[in-house]
Amino acid sequence: MTPLVSQLHAQNWVDARVAALFEDVAQVRFLLQVEAALAQAQGRLGIIPQAAATALQNSLPSFVPDLAGLQAGIATDGFPVLALLEQLRRHLPEAADFVHFGATTQDILDTALVLQLKTALEVLKTTLFDLITQLGAMAHTHRQTLMVGRTHTQHALPITFGLKVATWLAPLIRHSIRLSELEPRLYVVQFGGAVGTLAALEGRGVEIEAALATELKLGQPLMPWHTQRDSLAELCGWLSLLSASLGKIGQDVLLLGQSEIAEVREATGGGSSTMPHKSNPVRSEWLVAAARMNAGLLGNTHGAMLQEHERGTHGWQLEWHCLPQMLGLTSGALNNALVLLQGLEVNHDRMLQNLRASGGAVLSESLMFGLRKTMPPQQAKLLVNSWSNTAQQQHLSLPEVVKAAMPDLVWQSAESEYLGQTQVFIDRVLNAIPERTP
Amino acid sequence: MTPLVSQLHAQNWVDARVAALFEDVAQVRFLLQVEAALAQAQGRLGIIPQAAATALQNSLPSFVPDLAGLQAGIATDGFPVLALLEQLRRHLPEAADFVHFGATTQDILDTALVLQLKTALEVLKTTLFDLITQLGAMAHTHRQTLMVGRTHTQHALPITFGLKVATWLAPLIRHSIRLSELEPRLYVVQFGGAVGTLAALEGRGVEIEAALATELKLGQPLMPWHTQRDSLAELCGWLSLLSASLGKIGQDVLLLGQSEIAEVREATGGGSSTMPHKSNPVRSEWLVAAARMNAGLLGNTHGAMLQEHERGTHGWQLEWHCLPQMLGLTSGALNNALVLLQGLEVNHDRMLQNLRASGGAVLSESLMFGLRKTMPPQQAKLLVNSWSNTAQQQHLSLPEVVKAAMPDLVWQSAESEYLGQTQVFIDRVLNAIPERTP
Amino acid sequence: MTPLVSQLHAQNWVDARVAALFEDVAQVRFLLQVEAALAQAQGRLGIIPQAAATALQNSLPSFVPDLAGLQAGIATDGFPVLALLEQLRRHLPEAADFVHFGATTQDILDTALVLQLKTALEVLKTTLFDLITQLGAMAHTHRQTLMVGRTHTQHALPITFGLKVATWLAPLIRHSIRLSELEPRLYVVQFGGAVGTLAALEGRGVEIEAALATELKLGQPLMPWHTQRDSLAELCGWLSLLSASLGKIGQDVLLLGQSEIAEVREATGGGSSTMPHKSNPVRSEWLVAAARMNAGLLGNTHGAMLQEHERGTHGWQLEWHCLPQMLGLTSGALNNALVLLQGLEVNHDRMLQNLRASGGAVLSESLMFGLRKTMPPQQAKLLVNSWSNTAQQQHLSLPEVVKAAMPDLVWQSAESEYLGQTQVFIDRVLNAIPERTP
Amino acid sequence: MTPLVSQLHAQNWVDARVAALFEDVAQVRFLLQVEAALAQAQGRLGIIPQAAATALQNSLPSFVPDLAGLQAGIATDGFPVLALLEQLRRHLPEAADFVHFGATTQDILDTALVLQLKTALEVLKTTLFDLITQLGAMAHTHRQTLMVGRTHTQHALPITFGLKVATWLAPLIRHSIRLSELEPRLYVVQFGGAVGTLAALEGRGVEIEAALATELKLGQPLMPWHTQRDSLAELCGWLSLLSASLGKIGQDVLLLGQSEIAEVREATGGGSSTMPHKSNPVRSEWLVAAARMNAGLLGNTHGAMLQEHERGTHGWQLEWHCLPQMLGLTSGALNNALVLLQGLEVNHDRMLQNLRASGGAVLSESLMFGLRKTMPPQQAKLLVNSWSNTAQQQHLSLPEVVKAAMPDLVWQSAESEYLGQTQVFIDRVLNAIPERTP
Repeated sequence: MTPLVSQLHAQNWVDARVAALFEDVAQVRFLLQVEAALAQAQGRLGIIPQAAATALQNSLPSFVPDLAGLQAGIATDGFPVLALLEQLRRHLPEAADFVHFGATTQDILDTALVLQLKTALEVLKTTLFDLITQLGAMAHTHRQTLMVGRTHTQHALPITFGLKVATWLAPLIRHSIRLSELEPRLYVVQFGGAVGTLAALEGRGVEIEAALATELKLGQPLMPWHTQRDSLAELCGWLSLLSASLGKIGQDVLLLGQSEIAEVREATGGGSSTMPHKSNPVRSEWLVAAARMNAGLLGNTHGAMLQEHERGTHGWQLEWHCLPQMLGLTSGALNNALVLLQGLEVNHDRMLQNLRASGGAVLSESLMFGLRKTMPPQQAKLLVNSWSNTAQQQHLSLPEVVKAAMPDLVWQSAESEYLGQTQVFIDRVLNAIPERTP
Repeated sequence: MTPLVSQLHAQNWVDARVAALFEDVAQVRFLLQVEAALAQAQGRLGIIPQAAATALQNSLPSFVPDLAGLQAGIATDGFPVLALLEQLRRHLPEAADFVHFGATTQDILDTALVLQLKTALEVLKTTLFDLITQLGAMAHTHRQTLMVGRTHTQHALPITFGLKVATWLAPLIRHSIRLSELEPRLYVVQFGGAVGTLAALEGRGVEIEAALATELKLGQPLMPWHTQRDSLAELCGWLSLLSASLGKIGQDVLLLGQSEIAEVREATGGGSSTMPHKSNPVRSEWLVAAARMNAGLLGNTHGAMLQEHERGTHGWQLEWHCLPQMLGLTSGALNNALVLLQGLEVNHDRMLQNLRASGGAVLSESLMFGLRKTMPPQQAKLLVNSWSNTAQQQHLSLPEVVKAAMPDLVWQSAESEYLGQTQVFIDRVLNAIPERTP
Repeated sequence: MTPLVSQLHAQNWVDARVAALFEDVAQVRFLLQVEAALAQAQGRLGIIPQAAATALQNSLPSFVPDLAGLQAGIATDGFPVLALLEQLRRHLPEAADFVHFGATTQDILDTALVLQLKTALEVLKTTLFDLITQLGAMAHTHRQTLMVGRTHTQHALPITFGLKVATWLAPLIRHSIRLSELEPRLYVVQFGGAVGTLAALEGRGVEIEAALATELKLGQPLMPWHTQRDSLAELCGWLSLLSASLGKIGQDVLLLGQSEIAEVREATGGGSSTMPHKSNPVRSEWLVAAARMNAGLLGNTHGAMLQEHERGTHGWQLEWHCLPQMLGLTSGALNNALVLLQGLEVNHDRMLQNLRASGGAVLSESLMFGLRKTMPPQQAKLLVNSWSNTAQQQHLSLPEVVKAAMPDLVWQSAESEYLGQTQVFIDRVLNAIPERTP
Repeated sequence: MTPLVSQLHAQNWVDARVAALFEDVAQVRFLLQVEAALAQAQGRLGIIPQAAATALQNSLPSFVPDLAGLQAGIATDGFPVLALLEQLRRHLPEAADFVHFGATTQDILDTALVLQLKTALEVLKTTLFDLITQLGAMAHTHRQTLMVGRTHTQHALPITFGLKVATWLAPLIRHSIRLSELEPRLYVVQFGGAVGTLAALEGRGVEIEAALATELKLGQPLMPWHTQRDSLAELCGWLSLLSASLGKIGQDVLLLGQSEIAEVREATGGGSSTMPHKSNPVRSEWLVAAARMNAGLLGNTHGAMLQEHERGTHGWQLEWHCLPQMLGLTSGALNNALVLLQGLEVNHDRMLQNLRASGGAVLSESLMFGLRKTMPPQQAKLLVNSWSNTAQQQHLSLPEVVKAAMPDLVWQSAESEYLGQTQVFIDRVLNAIPERTP
């Protein structure tokens, strides 16, 4: 029902390691891991017999859940935990009474989700840092590569390709900071029992919560968050921010790779079924599509925060539909961006050629600021306009016209000299690249 | 990555027949069907040898595409057609030169999509009609079943449950009309070649287009619609409209089934892992979630209409992500609505009890209109307020207070008499139910 | 809070006539019109005294509602009708008892909304037909204007500008048909009383409903639609479909107007504060922005359909936030599209120049189909690739290389001959233009 | 075009101080403030004459821009800055040559936006802290107020109203932390000139940037962010997160205030035009509507991040449509939440009555855990079910049935004793309330 799970298409849309984390079997493994950790925590505190906890922990690797049975359970309950517990109890009768003690279905599902997310985000972080490294190298390599800056689709002034790459890079640096800010809020256990009071645990609830958190290397929330979904929605916001920044890279590559512009080119473009000369920039297209898809899904993850009472009616399920897709799409977009940029063919000559195609129009601002030192701005503006027209009509470059008309004028008539703070800005961004955390 | 494809969860979210249509193998079958039909059409017109066309048609049932090979093709091309053609040509060398003649990848993918949608919509239509029938029967059965009408969460005036069911039903009738209006726009072939001119076919393009349409029992569009995606977006709008109407049913059942209201109850509710007394209204929850999910996806299908030039850069891929999900979710919602309503337990006594719980407050409008025949409205309003307070304070019913205070007043003091045009409205809706098309 | 109501910006985003319909004063006028029509209908049927109805009707033109008073009412009630009725009753004491008889607030607000929409849609329809006419003329004028067709940002094959215009036009024709289909569903009165039973009207409810509909030249719905919002959501879908189609025009103009392509140009572009040579394609930008904005708002209008019970809690208010914006943005987009296209500067020479810039690569498909008549496709493909490379390396055109290598080959080596069914498709679209309804 | 700017409705949707900041006149004031600060910075650095800078600064208070003139400028340029500069230069000829020196339109508009946002967010922060204080007090006051916890619309176990309030409060505490994290990223100047290089400023660009930032008490970004819109989209995410959390409060109040539940009640509900007994929970409805509206707008603010090249084509305008609305709606929602909660009538008796309405079903978990100390869980479950049925059939409470059947059983049969860690969780949240920053 989506390219993310098609054998044919998935590779273009999702990182295979992330996809694997969200398969049924993996999902159930995470549930079991949480049940085992809970038993361990309770065993250690003497809430349940340590032997039962150990037995449970030991038997998990060999326990193979019967997915068809779970399916039947979900068809009536709506959730996989009841049926899973039943299977687990049959599998391990001696621990049967001590599994899932004092927990509610959502405790297990949410804590498992947090583990799943944490594992998946490790994958994303690695690729994000690879990408940051790649972009840093490109910004440095191309810091002097002249090209035209374009605003509102029109030629404006000269820039360098390195500056453009820095513009792609800077938001990614901020995204990595944002992630480190939200992680502590996200990586917390869910443990509240039926209505978030842990009433069944006779006053030892928060003690167990702490032990469970330790067991799973997660934090403790202020209180159970069954209907407080802000940290999940915040994560979705982050995923969408990140994929939008990657989408801008894709968008720019698409535009720079148009037949008429041809300044960059995907190393491995898609072929055409009838036109031998064509090479489609498919990877850039996937980046834009992933960005737009995630932006569209984001609203539903925020709407899903309106969960009723102590546990809601449908917001939770909305998360199931949105969160894995968004995570998957972002993981795929990171991969695509990395491959795209690693292989990107940059055509310096074409960049220079395009920069100069307009006969020096991109130097008109420079000329105006040169003239302004000797005359009022309005007069300068008129002169620039007049000379620009002359240049266009006589197929001359603007510097040639100026030289003829006002030979002594001092102005920056070389594009490479009219780059302002380009190098400073590139350096600022490069210096802001964070250390890769081990 | 989504419950729609989870072995555990899919059954709750998508009709299995619809899901099957969107599996990789089915998808490829549709592509092959279009290639075969194109060959047939061209064979009949003498564009390619009839023998090749026949060979192709005959070999299709036995041709098993190599999905791994297609996967590799998509990884570089972005689309499955090039690799599929190569496999097909190897499989059937004698027809190799005559397959896909004059077509472009998107011609095949789009026409296959139309066939897929048409097949899937047949499933949806059948369930929609079953649902309309079911609701019609319920509206009739419960046309006199008294209950309280609620506005802004508050008791307002009496209605009957049949009237509420008619409110659920009327939009579905309009949706079936809307579908019949959009179908002719949707069920058309895509056949334009690389840029929508059919240039390779030496002036016989539209002839072939017509033959292809006949072959596939589809219509002809005004022109190729590679970047005219309005009919697909229109379909998505229809899917979202329909699922929103089903979502309202789910929402109402959730509200009517709350512990304190308990007027209806899902026949098969979900259990709780710790609370034996609980039964969760999971099917209603799925209906609301599907509605919200589709509403959230809809925007992207409209954004996907902004496709550039003769074939776009990413809008098409957005469709792949949204359309099957929306169709799947709607198919599942239809099934869930049908099962929910077929098994819905309606508690007449509880309805009556709730209606009367407020001691006649729901009769205050009736009383006011009764009083207005003998005094000005403002005076009537004051009296109603005063008597209502008396009733509340003395735990009497409003009719009792009125009887004591103004024994001769003529007014409709029975809820069952204060139902206005309820029966007329129910009849109007029942009479508008369309014939089931065979 | 939005450019739609900024004195500075509104002109670029909304048709002034449509904006005026949604100002507070206009809104209140529509409410009063409905109250007057209700009184007229009830007067004619003898439900209220004809004199009161006439007095009400007559006094309306001179009645100036006190907006501050309404504001105060809304601050506590949430809705403007109660306070308005009070003012009206004070203004016209003799009719005080007969105003709003048997109606509920939402009856008045919804019916007024329908009138507002109908009036606004007349404006939109007129501009839509002007636009269809304009595009029709352009498709005809430019039916032979050669240009390159582009797919996935790359040069593909020749088309004509008229064909592209036909691609812009065809969806608009379908939109006008869609509108005519939905109008009868939309233009219906809302009249149901508090819970949709018309209980206060003693069995004469539907009679009054019919008279009210006649009075306002609207239709009758199957039943009151207080929580059946499908026709409003359908309208929003239409607005978004239409603006997406206009957005595609804007998108294409943006792309065709890029400095390097320069095939079209907005007649009146926006200036730059520092670069004299620049002209920004602002009107195209507004078209894309309006399309994306409407696509984003659309989901909320579908979510708004999940209204609870007999009257909901917040879905109605969501409509207030979305519907006028969407209508306004679409009206502005229609105006912008019309102005844009009427003034569009089309640069034939540049089109031809771009078409030929790649040295005949756009003829490679033509060459391949020419070769295929004398050799197998795979061999043809190899030859085309080889010759294309030769052409590129030696700066020759493809026809020149072919002439040298295989002088006797018969193929369509002129772009103007490789246009396939271009003229047929243009004619089909032109012939489908509907009559302008008076 | 939206209730946010209607004289009638705005008060219910937006904080008046925030609305005022986004009126045309205020907007222009911010633009002028940035131009003046730029001149000051450049005067101090000797880039322009200090006298001109001072003259500009001094003349601003008396300068009244001609909005109609600006309107005309925007109609052709798309942006207000060019026309404003022209007016400013006419107003102050002696400084004419030194205004806007080296800046681009977007520098001024974006920096002005940042100032606008900073000012508006001060308003929001104050209300947010008032709200946190109010909720903290309520959580404390009601920490022992017994009520039933509800999951999936069904009675589950006892909680206290204070715990529910803590659930409303905890996310707001996190939102205030999130805001403090994003503020440094957001409050930065935009200063890059036409393409982000500050080329016109002869190598002194970043010096001026720093001085401008100092002048405006803003930070410096890594580089100009003309097409790096992540911090704006991040803010929009925050606004939507916050309003979703407020929406959950509204949703819960709506549900708790239903006629059948009646545990809480808005102090000032909206009236009905025909039903004297009704009081509509309008403020809660506005909270839910604002939340859903913002969630729907959010996607477009992320889509707006895909801005092309050095300055984009339409993403910027999307921000104009979304950001002020989202900020306005959130400001209004904060006000509504505060008023709602300050006046909320909490009905303890009704809470207790509802808690006990099911004859002790909410104690079934407690009973089960009591029984589990003496028998296996499955046997306990059977007993609980059997006794629950007995209680229901004989209209006894569960404790009564247990007492009769197993008089010696030790279990927590009082709801007030089955609250688990309720007090601990409330304390944790109360202790996490941040200091109000001055």
